[in-house]
Amino acid sequence: MTSPGPDIRIAVDSAGLQRRIDELALISEAPAPVVTRVLFSEADLRGREYVRRAAREAALTLREDAVGNLFARWEGSEPGLAAVGSGSHTDAIPNAGKYDGVVGVLGAFEALAALKRAGFRPTRSLEVVMFTAEEPTRFGLGCLGSRLMAGSISVEKARGLKDREGRTLEELRCAAGCKGPLESVTLPPGYYHAFVELHIEQGPLLEAQKVPIGIVEHIAGPSSYRATLRGEGGHAGAVLMPVRHDALLAGAEIALAVERAAKGSGSPDTVGTVGVFRIEPGAVNSVPFGAYLEIDLRDARLGTRERALAEIRRTAEEACARRGVSMEFEEINADPPAAGDPRTVAIAQEVCAELGLRSLRMVSRAYHDSLFMARVSPTTMIFIPCRNGWSHRPEEYASPEHIASGVEVLAHTMARLAV
Amino acid sequence: MTSPGPDIRIAVDSAGLQRRIDELALISEAPAPVVTRVLFSEADLRGREYVRRAAREAALTLREDAVGNLFARWEGSEPGLAAVGSGSHTDAIPNAGKYDGVVGVLGAFEALAALKRAGFRPTRSLEVVMFTAEEPTRFGLGCLGSRLMAGSISVEKARGLKDREGRTLEELRCAAGCKGPLESVTLPPGYYHAFVELHIEQGPLLEAQKVPIGIVEHIAGPSSYRATLRGEGGHAGAVLMPVRHDALLAGAEIALAVERAAKGSGSPDTVGTVGVFRIEPGAVNSVPFGAYLEIDLRDARLGTRERALAEIRRTAEEACARRGVSMEFEEINADPPAAGDPRTVAIAQEVCAELGLRSLRMVSRAYHDSLFMARVSPTTMIFIPCRNGWSHRPEEYASPEHIASGVEVLAHTMARLAV
Repeated sequence: MTSPGPDIRIAVDSAGLQRRIDELALISEAPAPVVTRVLFSEADLRGREYVRRAAREAALTLREDAVGNLFARWEGSEPGLAAVGSGSHTDAIPNAGKYDGVVGVLGAFEALAALKRAGFRPTRSLEVVMFTAEEPTRFGLGCLGSRLMAGSISVEKARGLKDREGRTLEELRCAAGCKGPLESVTLPPGYYHAFVELHIEQGPLLEAQKVPIGIVEHIAGPSSYRATLRGEGGHAGAVLMPVRHDALLAGAEIALAVERAAKGSGSPDTVGTVGVFRIEPGAVNSVPFGAYLEIDLRDARLGTRERALAEIRRTAEEACARRGVSMEFEEINADPPAAGDPRTVAIAQEVCAELGLRSLRMVSRAYHDSLFMARVSPTTMIFIPCRNGWSHRPEEYASPEHIASGVEVLAHTMARLAV
Repeated sequence: MTSPGPDIRIAVDSAGLQRRIDELALISEAPAPVVTRVLFSEADLRGREYVRRAAREAALTLREDAVGNLFARWEGSEPGLAAVGSGSHTDAIPNAGKYDGVVGVLGAFEALAALKRAGFRPTRSLEVVMFTAEEPTRFGLGCLGSRLMAGSISVEKARGLKDREGRTLEELRCAAGCKGPLESVTLPPGYYHAFVELHIEQGPLLEAQKVPIGIVEHIAGPSSYRATLRGEGGHAGAVLMPVRHDALLAGAEIALAVERAAKGSGSPDTVGTVGVFRIEPGAVNSVPFGAYLEIDLRDARLGTRERALAEIRRTAEEACARRGVSMEFEEINADPPAAGDPRTVAIAQEVCAELGLRSLRMVSRAYHDSLFMARVSPTTMIFIPCRNGWSHRPEEYASPEHIASGVEVLAHTMARLAV
């Protein structure tokens, strides 16, 4: 058996990996360079087929669970031991780019293929997961696959999730050909010995500091909320200003309050966004009687996030009361932050040092499937720089060199964990 | 010849008129009680067919012009004289009610029918117009029919108007069966001796003061603008607050600035509304990179409106510059206010006095086809109360008694003008 870690020499097929990333990007609901693959859309289904093919080309054994999580496995010499996991997602929000998630799936296939080519033979099995619906586009709830695997959402709640057209997860997963009951998705305790996710940073720090590798110590806890406002409509010419109950204006105050609360939280990690904002009836000469907002609020520290939320609610309630607009404010989802596993973080950092790659311990401000894997397995993430920190847009870009470095660090870290 | 005015006794068929209003309301793109009839939609075309039938039942002679304005005429004993006109519109914005415009079309048919039944014989011809597209829903520009009749828009500009799907007025009017060149829509000089439009107030004053009839001395000048904002998108978790260029937040500041400028204009007649507000990409975990607003700004005085506009632009430019968001600010349309004709106003007021109906001289804050008829004819409007001042919503309501009073005043005023 070859000894693991940087003692073995692996050669990442950077060109082949880039070709696969480019090919998968063309499977999209919108024309290139836009990538859109919403859960169980036709593009998502074709993307899944592409991922199956890529896993088979890497000689991995496929298994799929009842929610469409896909597992590509390289059986170790002691299959009874807990496996070393990696993986990410390939679904993409509307108007996204080609690297978010994809690098962590196709890159992990390449990490395993490179280890095979180098003659490495793992003791523990190595397994790459393509998680279902990391993005919340369809159901307003992210990390559906990993959340179910970690038992962080009740099967009852998951089954009843509905999209905007009223279709349930249960209905859609069956139509997509997923087999078995949702209960079977939950991982047995101790299933993974460790889990390491490769991902683009989706932030500007690595690029700014010219560091090729980030190692994630904390993942910010995401939360999201919906505010449904109801005021009074009427003719934009005839309803005089003092008697208006304009729902859009209450919504505008709430959007600005979200920004103010995030900026003023006292922590640089707090981010607050209104990403969905719709009004009714939406005619130039009608006073808006309705507004619907979705608010995203994240922090590496739960206390700061909770204080920011309280501040937003207080301002929203004051604005609505003053304007005579009613508000329903509901939590869509709120997850606590997660901490990386110190031993796994240390191994990844050692690997970087031995490969001569500078690395930075960091906070992931975006959430990832690792947020949930961290609840059931020692976990860390390997970040690579992306241009301008851009993500969730077609201009998203990571260089082939940075991707290759990330794959190399992932391969060696998995190898070292697999002995 | 019967002598005109309150000397003749007319009997308005209130029940028949109400039945026709109710029937027309059922011709809608949305289920009752919602009325939606957007220009040249299937519902608008069926609505037009209903109006033709109603005109024929009132024994009026029909003519239609190249943009779909419909003229229903009762020839006077001296057809060479300029006619006395009335009329309004039957198109309806999304989620509207059944009285706006409709009362002025079907009510004018009933006014002429009641005069006929009373044995009145006009010297001048009486003519009811159903104007095409008073509402701006399809092209973002209101009063399309009357604007063309008055020569207040160039045929060139009208021909090129495009809806959101990129279809032109030229294309749509031809598909709807309108015949002849758009040039032929312009009225010959002096075509109308006078023009009197019956309409619900769309404001709360008559109801509050328990006055059944308003006589319009001024029509506020409407204007509308579009602001197209472009910031920078990105991942809602990863893009830190200080480096954001959030287009939604710039838009929120603009919406609040519109309200502030209208409230602070110094005139109670100024109204400012953001009725259209769309963002891109519109996903809960994406920073909005784009925003599109349509702003409606009206005033009975041009100077106040212009000062409010300047204030809005200044604030918008400041907010966008501060946020690193680019803005295109364009006028969609800006019309000057119009004044009612003193003699026509006086006649309508006399008629009210002789009928024993209290009346109020007032400003129309909503615009109407009369805004354009006033440019080519002595014009006034007769307002009737509507519940709570509501309009442009399904709850819009005017009582049969108030409608009958309005029709009676209209009939006598037209009769007096027609001798």
